[in-house]
Amino acid sequence: MRIGRFRYQGETFYGVVEGDRVFPCGDPFGSLELCPADSAPGGGLALAELEILAPCLPGKVVCVGLNYRDHARELGLPLPEEPVLFLKPSTAVIGPGEPIVYPEMSRQVDYEAELAVVIKKKARCVREEEVFDYILGYTCANDVTARDLQRKDGQWTRAKSFDTFLPLGPYIVTGLDPGDREVSLYLNGERKQHSSTARLIFPVPRLVAFISRVMTLLPKDVILTGTPAGVGPVQPGDVVEVAVSGVGRLVNRVVLPAEL
Amino acid sequence: MRIGRFRYQGETFYGVVEGDRVFPCGDPFGSLELCPADSAPGGGLALAELEILAPCLPGKVVCVGLNYRDHARELGLPLPEEPVLFLKPSTAVIGPGEPIVYPEMSRQVDYEAELAVVIKKKARCVREEEVFDYILGYTCANDVTARDLQRKDGQWTRAKSFDTFLPLGPYIVTGLDPGDREVSLYLNGERKQHSSTARLIFPVPRLVAFISRVMTLLPKDVILTGTPAGVGPVQPGDVVEVAVSGVGRLVNRVVLPAEL
Repeated sequence: MRIGRFRYQGETFYGVVEGDRVFPCGDPFGSLELCPADSAPGGGLALAELEILAPCLPGKVVCVGLNYRDHARELGLPLPEEPVLFLKPSTAVIGPGEPIVYPEMSRQVDYEAELAVVIKKKARCVREEEVFDYILGYTCANDVTARDLQRKDGQWTRAKSFDTFLPLGPYIVTGLDPGDREVSLYLNGERKQHSSTARLIFPVPRLVAFISRVMTLLPKDVILTGTPAGVGPVQPGDVVEVAVSGVGRLVNRVVLPAEL
Repeated sequence: MRIGRFRYQGETFYGVVEGDRVFPCGDPFGSLELCPADSAPGGGLALAELEILAPCLPGKVVCVGLNYRDHARELGLPLPEEPVLFLKPSTAVIGPGEPIVYPEMSRQVDYEAELAVVIKKKARCVREEEVFDYILGYTCANDVTARDLQRKDGQWTRAKSFDTFLPLGPYIVTGLDPGDREVSLYLNGERKQHSSTARLIFPVPRLVAFISRVMTLLPKDVILTGTPAGVGPVQPGDVVEVAVSGVGRLVNRVVLPAEL
């Protein structure tokens, strides 16, 4: 099932996407109505007429650094023994099609394609074998990073926290095995990153269990699972696309603040 | 004015504290009613009968590392040219009197006394001379840190993100000059940290302006301004008190998970 968040005639709502139709549903983090009343053929709303928003507004976004061996190698950093965590603020979230704003503070802004995990219900000290009870589904994420500021600060927070630095979407896809997803990034149509979550150092169950031992995960919280090798810079005007097999394609354009 | 958040007979509300009475007020982040109808002598509620909660539930908590010269020196780290930012998750917030839980993952948990700034309204690219329009007030914070994990990870997030690692309170104090506050920490009654915000490398207006150029600040967001020298470990059973002159005293006890 593909669950999105939409705006139509001033109203914001969740909906289940089937083909080119969207069936408004209840709160997927509460009581999702799996059988929308109007799901008959021709029912629902035309996807083309809706504004597609980021599929959820997370309370927190927990990210893991260096979770693919080849990315650690390209940055010249040793492999971590345990997941290295950082946070992105929810104010960085944008939806599909929204612009990534190139901040004046930075001279090198990089894309980072990632599989994102969306938490369904409160999770505290969850065991690896039970994490799927706490996951609503998966979506695409771009962990946009001001690489120059990341190097300068040592701490990664400023570099990864600018407004618009977390494109998410387009939909939350449920019922998937997250263990063998192809994760790719296309810059102006050219493939720059390509790997599989089968190569994650810390796979999804391990990550969710680990994070839940540190901090309580709440509904709508998002976990970014790390980016593979091939990160590189974007320029204003570029079109950046994150593609995750079975999950979707997330497209955003890079703009200068003056273009807003 | 001192604004707190309270629970009484199952209801949660904001209130203005005057002496030992609390006058329920509107939303201080929206339309604070400055003249509560029942503020006559003997009106309001008895403070002693209320549960005092953390004074707000922040969407995000933005912290600055190494903002006192003497603390940078004791950690053997160079002085930053610009504020070094990190985030704590809102799930770490606890109120006055709530226990700080010593996590099983760590062998060294440290206190860090700090002045906290509470944001009143949306702030984006604010200039230093106008930041006070965007600040509701100030409160005490303890930036509890698993020092061993901070060293191990390099990134500070895990070390600072455990549930209960952000005591906040007791109240938000409005109308203060944040530029000359004494910040102290008492461990079991013995003073361990003592400095003044006059010695901040990046004072409050500079910090708020800088952060607002990176990420939009929203009502209830909290900024921690850094800790002075004298950080040190706590043990289960310890009583930790953060005192900020003119702002208040925030007391929490350290417990083991089994004691909960």
